Amino acid sequence: MTEARLDVLAIGNAIVDVIADCDDAFLAAEGLQKGMMRLIDAAEATRLYEHMGPARQISGGSAGNTAAGVAALGGRAGFIGQVAPDQLGEFYRHDLTATGVEFTTPAADLGEPTARSMVLVTPDAHRTMNTFLGAAQLLPPAALDEKQIADAAILYLEGYLWDPETPRYAMIRAIEVARAAGRKVAFTLSDTFCIDRHRDGFNQLIDGGRIDVLFANEAEIIMLTGAPDCELAIDAVRGKVETLVVTRSERGAVATQKGARARAPAEPVDKVVDTTGAGDLFAAGFLYGQTSGRALEDSLRIGAIAAAEVISHYGARPEADLRVLVAARLG
Amino acid sequence: MTEARLDVLAIGNAIVDVIADCDDAFLAAEGLQKGMMRLIDAAEATRLYEHMGPARQISGGSAGNTAAGVAALGGRAGFIGQVAPDQLGEFYRHDLTATGVEFTTPAADLGEPTARSMVLVTPDAHRTMNTFLGAAQLLPPAALDEKQIADAAILYLEGYLWDPETPRYAMIRAIEVARAAGRKVAFTLSDTFCIDRHRDGFNQLIDGGRIDVLFANEAEIIMLTGAPDCELAIDAVRGKVETLVVTRSERGAVATQKGARARAPAEPVDKVVDTTGAGDLFAAGFLYGQTSGRALEDSLRIGAIAAAEVISHYGARPEADLRVLVAARLG
Repeated sequence: MTEARLDVLAIGNAIVDVIADCDDAFLAAEGLQKGMMRLIDAAEATRLYEHMGPARQISGGSAGNTAAGVAALGGRAGFIGQVAPDQLGEFYRHDLTATGVEFTTPAADLGEPTARSMVLVTPDAHRTMNTFLGAAQLLPPAALDEKQIADAAILYLEGYLWDPETPRYAMIRAIEVARAAGRKVAFTLSDTFCIDRHRDGFNQLIDGGRIDVLFANEAEIIMLTGAPDCELAIDAVRGKVETLVVTRSERGAVATQKGARARAPAEPVDKVVDTTGAGDLFAAGFLYGQTSGRALEDSLRIGAIAAAEVISHYGARPEADLRVLVAARLG
Repeated sequence: MTEARLDVLAIGNAIVDVIADCDDAFLAAEGLQKGMMRLIDAAEATRLYEHMGPARQISGGSAGNTAAGVAALGGRAGFIGQVAPDQLGEFYRHDLTATGVEFTTPAADLGEPTARSMVLVTPDAHRTMNTFLGAAQLLPPAALDEKQIADAAILYLEGYLWDPETPRYAMIRAIEVARAAGRKVAFTLSDTFCIDRHRDGFNQLIDGGRIDVLFANEAEIIMLTGAPDCELAIDAVRGKVETLVVTRSERGAVATQKGARARAPAEPVDKVVDTTGAGDLFAAGFLYGQTSGRALEDSLRIGAIAAAEVISHYGARPEADLRVLVAARLG
């Protein structure tokens, strides 16, 4: 196995977030469940957008946020995802590239625009996402740069990519390529609704030994396993993956790795503004820690530092210099 | 003269702001002068964008910001400006409309995209703007809804609109329509570089008695008049307009109105993040105060409250509820 050229290569839906404030009454009137990510079609996207308040547009997408986080921490990151040849797609490419992420998947002119997610943020900082996948849902296996995958120490995949069928085949192919090259495969369960849609597929990946590093929050690991509590859920999964990372919001995170176990507290945040991207940036920090030779506990702590930064402002990409924050906290 | 249907109708360049952080060294390397607004062509826009960091996209444009501010304060606001039928144009229209601003100017398919301004924000919160005017610079007089202009108590115009020739004719026509309907005309000098380009034209407007309310900051009123200090500059202009408002950053603002004079301090701000829009929102607050029957000093104070809110975050449109802020400060 040759030396890896990239630390983390992430594959996910290339999505621009369209972020607006709203109150609980708006969510209720629209029939939206707080905290969920739902997929919507073009007509619903247009309808909801007409009801929404003025918005900020910030590049997002779960795996894209993680790639941006790895790069912001000083790691070598890449991203695979599909945008359209439109203004949103240009913004998306710019933002990732400007962060230092290698993003070479060509834009695809298939009659679908670049994906966007209408992110509604309530005063309690929770986000409710309404995602129109557009061009992202058509990412074909042929768009993968297989040499790039073989050159990355860790292939990172978002569960959300399992929703549309075409990218699902791309994910499965990417896992094959990474494993054949002797690389690690990391996977995030994304959210409980996503697990509800795809529990069997996710369990097949995990049971089949195709995932080395699994990320979940408490609700997700419980949803995946059907266990009655988080500890039992962890026990049910930890033997199936080399590394398991479970985030627990303000109660920090735990990780198991082979026989070892570590935990880290959440980092303090002055004011939580928008929780979008917390899990994505936690994964970025943890993976950066692991690929830069940090211990398990320190990797969790870097995850917590990156997550704390991203929830202190709107948008799911880091704004502060994460290297400075990590150096100040961990040395 | 019939009762006005709108309090303020603003005409300006319809621009989406593309906001990125940078340091002083970046401005120096790009040859940019901090605090200025410069006009750039498509090639320069592409070149600079490639150098810029990841960005937030937030609708902006000086007069558009003012219209959004008036609406956020509870006033009846309209906007006239030209976007293209593209994604940026849709965002722009959505954001104004969602704020409650009447914006009915049709998008124009003239081969130019919607305008954008690359706003570089340094750690001292100063903004340096690089504006590609695109479709905005082609706003023709024929795009004006003359009935809408005649129905607005105050027509508000940004000096920036004087830069491209076609919108300049639209402005001149709009002033004629407003004055014929017995309405007031307000004008902002926009920035010192804009005055340097158009001092004669601006002075002709003012000397010709076509401006009722003039907005400027200290540097702008000095630049316009060539006076050796701000007080002398005010003395030189106050007799030519019914109302003169001069903002002085952290030293508050002064206004003259016929024989009267008032001043108001700046409102406190915890942390200044991005000064973009400070002048636009000051104008919004002042005009809202005047159209809602407030005294001159209170109108200045509402301007100061709106300006303080907008400089406390990225982007030039209000995020907090301005009505609540004004009620808390002024009752």
